[in-house]
Amino acid sequence: MPVSVPVNPYVLDMEYAVRGPIPQRAAVLQREGRTTIPCNIGNPQALGQKPLTFLRQVLALMEEPGRLDREKKISRLCASSHEVAEQMREEDIIPEYVLDYVADMYENWPTGMGAYTESKGPLFIREAIARFIDARDGISTASGVPADPESIFLTSGASEGVRFILEMLITDSSDGIMIPIPQYPLYSATIVKCGGTQINYYPDEDDDWSLDRSMLDEALAEAKKKKVNVRAIVVINPGNPTGAVLDAKSGREVVSFARENGLAIIADEVYQENLYGADWVSFAKLIGEDDIALFSLHSISKGFYGECGHRGGYLEVRNPPAVENAETGFMDVLLKQASVRLNSNTAGQVLTYVMVNPPPEGSPVYAQFAAEREAILTELYEKAVMIREAFDKMEGVESFGRIGALYHFPRLNVLPKGTGDYEYCMALLEETGIVTVNGAGFGQKPGTNHLRIAFLPPKEMIEAMLPDWIAFHNTYVTG
Amino acid sequence: MPVSVPVNPYVLDMEYAVRGPIPQRAAVLQREGRTTIPCNIGNPQALGQKPLTFLRQVLALMEEPGRLDREKKISRLCASSHEVAEQMREEDIIPEYVLDYVADMYENWPTGMGAYTESKGPLFIREAIARFIDARDGISTASGVPADPESIFLTSGASEGVRFILEMLITDSSDGIMIPIPQYPLYSATIVKCGGTQINYYPDEDDDWSLDRSMLDEALAEAKKKKVNVRAIVVINPGNPTGAVLDAKSGREVVSFARENGLAIIADEVYQENLYGADWVSFAKLIGEDDIALFSLHSISKGFYGECGHRGGYLEVRNPPAVENAETGFMDVLLKQASVRLNSNTAGQVLTYVMVNPPPEGSPVYAQFAAEREAILTELYEKAVMIREAFDKMEGVESFGRIGALYHFPRLNVLPKGTGDYEYCMALLEETGIVTVNGAGFGQKPGTNHLRIAFLPPKEMIEAMLPDWIAFHNTYVTG
Repeated sequence: MPVSVPVNPYVLDMEYAVRGPIPQRAAVLQREGRTTIPCNIGNPQALGQKPLTFLRQVLALMEEPGRLDREKKISRLCASSHEVAEQMREEDIIPEYVLDYVADMYENWPTGMGAYTESKGPLFIREAIARFIDARDGISTASGVPADPESIFLTSGASEGVRFILEMLITDSSDGIMIPIPQYPLYSATIVKCGGTQINYYPDEDDDWSLDRSMLDEALAEAKKKKVNVRAIVVINPGNPTGAVLDAKSGREVVSFARENGLAIIADEVYQENLYGADWVSFAKLIGEDDIALFSLHSISKGFYGECGHRGGYLEVRNPPAVENAETGFMDVLLKQASVRLNSNTAGQVLTYVMVNPPPEGSPVYAQFAAEREAILTELYEKAVMIREAFDKMEGVESFGRIGALYHFPRLNVLPKGTGDYEYCMALLEETGIVTVNGAGFGQKPGTNHLRIAFLPPKEMIEAMLPDWIAFHNTYVTG
Repeated sequence: MPVSVPVNPYVLDMEYAVRGPIPQRAAVLQREGRTTIPCNIGNPQALGQKPLTFLRQVLALMEEPGRLDREKKISRLCASSHEVAEQMREEDIIPEYVLDYVADMYENWPTGMGAYTESKGPLFIREAIARFIDARDGISTASGVPADPESIFLTSGASEGVRFILEMLITDSSDGIMIPIPQYPLYSATIVKCGGTQINYYPDEDDDWSLDRSMLDEALAEAKKKKVNVRAIVVINPGNPTGAVLDAKSGREVVSFARENGLAIIADEVYQENLYGADWVSFAKLIGEDDIALFSLHSISKGFYGECGHRGGYLEVRNPPAVENAETGFMDVLLKQASVRLNSNTAGQVLTYVMVNPPPEGSPVYAQFAAEREAILTELYEKAVMIREAFDKMEGVESFGRIGALYHFPRLNVLPKGTGDYEYCMALLEETGIVTVNGAGFGQKPGTNHLRIAFLPPKEMIEAMLPDWIAFHNTYVTG
């Protein structure tokens, strides 16, 4: 008989709703042969989104050393032989631009994909990330604080970067991390696991999830009353689960709040390409020359790349704080964190490199790259709008914020007495097959009910499901 | 001014020698233009080992959907056109067997590399791992306990699996983990980070690093004296840093010890293919029908694959214990651990699949696959033997154990008065450019001195360095 053993209570207490009871029930229904419509997770390629051609050509060529010469030979054969050219379509030829791009990567990366890299990731990739950040934020040699490649860590998705930082900042339950409610459960789960205290702040839903000093000050005062030392504030922009793009004014409120209270900012900016026309400003730009400690995260999983499975991303650090009572610097400790897992996976590193160094306008493959990108973003936005319009036909359903990320987080103002969003989402699943995650999984203002829906399934599927949902809803809430 | 902040003392106290001061000094010398010979880390492809052709062809084809049809077309062109066949060499054609192998993977994996997978990894890969374990251990339907795909987790290298388990088993400093001294610093670092207590046991170096009950009982008694509850015993087989292959008798001693004391076994078996003819037996086989909790780890980083950078591997669990005072099962908590990081990277998953499902004897690509494998393993062994022979020419250097893994861990019996292995390794680096890691980085019996050398650099490089080392040594120790 195996004995029963104690398990770390922090690990035991972690919750992770995105893979929780509703998706689990959906999996059971699927096995029983029911058709379900998975709107519960931001996993684009699981729902038919195709990977970008350029991205994967580069990755595949990096994985197969020696293929560069072979592909050049095939290109020459196509050019010289009528017979070959007749058989091979244009998309069967790897463009010379791609071969050169990869040849350049091999130059910069002689040990290749199979060797451990520096714990931070290869320097040339970190340099490319720094250039990407500066270009994005309009930093020039004349103005602004440029990104430093030595302060950039390649990570396995954004989750790993969050873990590194929280593991360092939290020493015990007297350390608090401020997180927006609703939030992505990675934060609550990691705080619980590290033994810290989650301090909630409540963006103003009715004002498009905006932020102001009063709500931040209020949360901090609450924490102080409980003798909790707040160490950092997490901002997710565009939001998850809200999908809302934060306005610059809200961002500036966070910066002044962090400055005055000596807090670090953890800026989860993984949806920075999912803007659909809304203007967005990074926290690196917002803090400018301020010396606030900033940890910002980006990922290949979202945007129009949608390379979730590959687990790639980066963590950029600005103004790392000094470490109390220690001779080691903050960045040295962070490097030790990264060293224990040796390096982030090299395939994720390659995809991160392409993300920050895409083919420029005017390059021969740009037209195809841009067309693929636009097709993905345009369709996402169309689906987002369709779903929002459907909410208008559902009694008591309201959705706020400028559309961003991959999600809506509508508020359910009318529900049958004694029931909450969990019952609603479960009934929605049973009746229509639509898989969502209920608001409680992300946290919400007490007394409110929500759900998160990812607008990722194919358009036809969404078109077909919306009338069913509207009908279900209007019956359910009055039933 | 950034304020100074407290950092989690466990994270601050972690040490990770493999990327510590000696390799860091080597990096400085390299930047100054010195040639160094990196024997400090088991990173084969950084030292010229080529990735296996089959492995990378499969991975590249998986990364580039649509290339299957294109490659078939190219094969047909080669077969039908004299002109094409003349230009394309045999290695330019992807064998039909590889295309079929990949087509089969696509069938099993319709969402592909870019989508999140199940947190444990795709089921068909876990099934293949289970078959691999059963075949390796001679488990049939008639005898033995077969591996269960549901108890297998794909991980980002073995390190991640170790982290999951230690984070669960360690609740505070009263929880101890027994680790062999010397050990791989992943264990000491992770135990420190989790706030647990490291309990050392000392394999018998002079008896080829063998284990017996008395040394294990002694370590446990020491722990009990300190009021430490030992939760698990770590065994690394073949050893790192010792390189020694454990004999079955030693393994059985561990099993009886774990059984009688209700301990889990954490079996780090990542070097299970680096045996060079020595017989080896897995802990899954050793425990047999016993109900001891077993966590065993394997990786794509070692063996003859050497795919360190890709971060792939798996954790297999047997006889998970019940969780004290909780309704959740141990496996559910482990699944939650895996869920928070969503999934291990898909490229590492593909390489793990190929590792456990290589082309079988008789398949058309087997000859090439086997030849590449043998070339790597044969050369590794030759280099290992060359280095051992050199030790015989160095005063007071002794090395024990049946050769396995990628390392020797010789004992330095004679050193200048008042100096230890750190000074020795630093002097060796400065004088000869040879980069090693000193014994203290792994832990060693008090009063002894060692170093770890990875026998990975190219043969010519080792041949050239050994006389220098012998000369350095014999001058240094008498000097």
